[in-house]
Amino acid sequence: MDNYKSLKPFLEPRSIAIIGLSRRTGEGSNNALENLLGYGYRGKIYPVNPNTGEILGVKAYPSIKDVDGPVDLAVISTHRSRVPAHIRECAEKGVKCISIVTQGFVDAGDEEGSRLFKEIADIARSSGCRILGPNSFGSANVYHNFCSAFARIHMQRNPVGLICQTGGLFNSSSEFRFIGKGLDIGNTCNVDFADCLEYFEHDPEVKVIVLHIEGMADARRFFNVAKRISGKKPIVALKTGKIEQSVRAASSHTGSLAGRHVVWEAALKQAGVISVDSFEELTDITRAFCLLPPLTNPNVCVATFSGGVAIMALDAMRNTGLHAGKLSKTTGAKIEKLAPEWLSVGNPVDHWPIVMGSGSMTRTLSDILEILLSDAEFGALLFIQIVPSPAMSREIKGILDSLAAKYPSRPLVATLTGPCSFELVRELQNEGRILAFTAPERAIRALARVHEYIEFRLRSPAD
Amino acid sequence: MDNYKSLKPFLEPRSIAIIGLSRRTGEGSNNALENLLGYGYRGKIYPVNPNTGEILGVKAYPSIKDVDGPVDLAVISTHRSRVPAHIRECAEKGVKCISIVTQGFVDAGDEEGSRLFKEIADIARSSGCRILGPNSFGSANVYHNFCSAFARIHMQRNPVGLICQTGGLFNSSSEFRFIGKGLDIGNTCNVDFADCLEYFEHDPEVKVIVLHIEGMADARRFFNVAKRISGKKPIVALKTGKIEQSVRAASSHTGSLAGRHVVWEAALKQAGVISVDSFEELTDITRAFCLLPPLTNPNVCVATFSGGVAIMALDAMRNTGLHAGKLSKTTGAKIEKLAPEWLSVGNPVDHWPIVMGSGSMTRTLSDILEILLSDAEFGALLFIQIVPSPAMSREIKGILDSLAAKYPSRPLVATLTGPCSFELVRELQNEGRILAFTAPERAIRALARVHEYIEFRLRSPAD
Repeated sequence: MDNYKSLKPFLEPRSIAIIGLSRRTGEGSNNALENLLGYGYRGKIYPVNPNTGEILGVKAYPSIKDVDGPVDLAVISTHRSRVPAHIRECAEKGVKCISIVTQGFVDAGDEEGSRLFKEIADIARSSGCRILGPNSFGSANVYHNFCSAFARIHMQRNPVGLICQTGGLFNSSSEFRFIGKGLDIGNTCNVDFADCLEYFEHDPEVKVIVLHIEGMADARRFFNVAKRISGKKPIVALKTGKIEQSVRAASSHTGSLAGRHVVWEAALKQAGVISVDSFEELTDITRAFCLLPPLTNPNVCVATFSGGVAIMALDAMRNTGLHAGKLSKTTGAKIEKLAPEWLSVGNPVDHWPIVMGSGSMTRTLSDILEILLSDAEFGALLFIQIVPSPAMSREIKGILDSLAAKYPSRPLVATLTGPCSFELVRELQNEGRILAFTAPERAIRALARVHEYIEFRLRSPAD
Repeated sequence: MDNYKSLKPFLEPRSIAIIGLSRRTGEGSNNALENLLGYGYRGKIYPVNPNTGEILGVKAYPSIKDVDGPVDLAVISTHRSRVPAHIRECAEKGVKCISIVTQGFVDAGDEEGSRLFKEIADIARSSGCRILGPNSFGSANVYHNFCSAFARIHMQRNPVGLICQTGGLFNSSSEFRFIGKGLDIGNTCNVDFADCLEYFEHDPEVKVIVLHIEGMADARRFFNVAKRISGKKPIVALKTGKIEQSVRAASSHTGSLAGRHVVWEAALKQAGVISVDSFEELTDITRAFCLLPPLTNPNVCVATFSGGVAIMALDAMRNTGLHAGKLSKTTGAKIEKLAPEWLSVGNPVDHWPIVMGSGSMTRTLSDILEILLSDAEFGALLFIQIVPSPAMSREIKGILDSLAAKYPSRPLVATLTGPCSFELVRELQNEGRILAFTAPERAIRALARVHEYIEFRLRSPAD
């Protein structure tokens, strides 16, 4: 619980000092204070800037020492040469947590940068302060309307704890927010992956932990901690630095040792970490863990408007634990009652001819899906549907919403194609209740990774 | 040129008869006549329905024999048992091209279906009619405001010729239209992949050929034809049926022999066909061939707002022919003139600190990209950018538009992330001038496949 206590001010600060805050405000100015006010952050904010008495109507202080109240968290973004002095002042003031935004330490590749890096690491050690960074985007907690970063982030309450080495992930994918809560450990002079993992281990609001790893100094401790936690909460990781050039780039980006890719892959797997291969997969799998109830078995039912697209889904099951088993007699008979006599009903269930031949398309489609979803022999239902028009989009959304409400414990994934599907997928993404993708392979991949994790949990139960 | 002549009525019919057209019209009725009127198709349309004198104000005929003018194309969607008779009547009437929408031939798996299939194949052979299908979605040509399908399609003028075995691809991806022009060969009793390839070989409006293959009877002829054409136009193929179950599903979907996946992969490669692995890749790569000018070399410049996301792009270059080479002295010096003194300028070019420190963000960003784009040592530029707000979205779009207009022969790909990127990518997709993705790996994959094809063309020049 040590890290849960000591890192808490990064995520739930009652007060924050922003050292080196610019007076520039408005669009494109990247003013952290302006952002905090915009989020509706309710703690105390102390801008520190020796050249002004106020910024955006908030009283500014010449130095952290002049701040009258207690400060939970300080954020430093001054020139690198002045960072050690600011940290010492923070320590004297009794600030326990400090984020360093400033770049140009080990990432700069020069001697001065390395010297300063060592200096701030030493201050952290001797003072007991916890330091995030340097070269950190900061920390965020949308449950507290809080983000210390200079760039504005989107506040969506996903139960995700992000630990990353690039601020790029705070604003993250266009399709999903990895925050929830987030810590950019940057160049890691003091707070590292293992520390943050232990924080999210104990955070009841975090259900899924996401890692963006460029490299790290103490991999052994990380794997020990990850192994303990992965049995309790899914840890999804994107390890970058897979080729020599990106390893070099990682070294100049975060000054970290990337290590050999294959070794990493094996070690992550060993620790029960769900390792993903791309930004898009990170997005899809994290979202899947947020939204899907657990699969009780690997048998997937596919209901499809198109035989051809269903075959793509079956292909995607290759080398996963998933399969599309036969329909049970009972379920088959129920579907056959609705279907035209010539249709041979199986899995995939070709719902198009059934729906087309029926009096009420929406009703029949909904009936079919309900029959399939309530068959416990299936661990999940993949629904592949074309969205030809805005009117049909509303119908389909209505069906999905009511099914999700009626069967909350049944894993349901939609693959939507056709003219109006992009917009419907976007709408479902924003609402955050139903898992939907624009391609069948992405839907199957999401189901497969969630299923893999459930199997892993069964093999290695949490203590 | 034989197939170019004989298949032309499928794509440029001056008149079409729709045999078995329903009287039902309006949303969800899937009325092919209603669609044609909606597209603004300018040929003659002859509905054939013995139970009515008109549909949607268009005169209907009891039989094809009663139609007074010449008919280029007939579309049949009656019960399977009546299809052979309709084909014979069409042949007597002098119709040269016939699409059969009706299902339940080899796909049904019963004896009657196989018998009827053989019967229609025999009629085609003896009469000289060309038959598309059965179980075909039909044909489409947006350049002629034409699509014979019962489901409405989106008309976007992409220079793409699609040959497929599922109508699902006519309405295609949410992100891209594969039509252009399209032929669904369905169960292939007469017109096959090789025939359609030869059509698009000679079609000057088609720049990229897309194949969705479930299986085929005469693979030898297909590979010979593909090998000849792939040196002239890129052929992008998604071969489905990779696992035993999907092979079985393909057999019941289109009655075709899927064959072993690895053998297919090798043979496609040998024929110079660009084989893709998923629906999303098919979408991305086809779009890339439509939009990208050829890469003159495999050296990619990466300009990025985030070191972390750029590393993902570098990782994605693994196992491709692409690499990110050093900046030339001249280009490096030009960028350094704009950059803060502490920044070590290289490739990837970290544009964020340069842009942030400048007086005019938009101007500086545009200047940087122009310097990089005009450096011929790079074969392509990957621009990775966050889109934090609608205002920034407009700025970024403005920069991209003017760069694309100024450097039409330079390959430029954008990866856009952050809160407003999904919408901007969608806008760029719809406008169809600039290649943009939401994930760095997808951008690199697109560049890599286009580069591979260019290398292939250099090794095997077209005659």
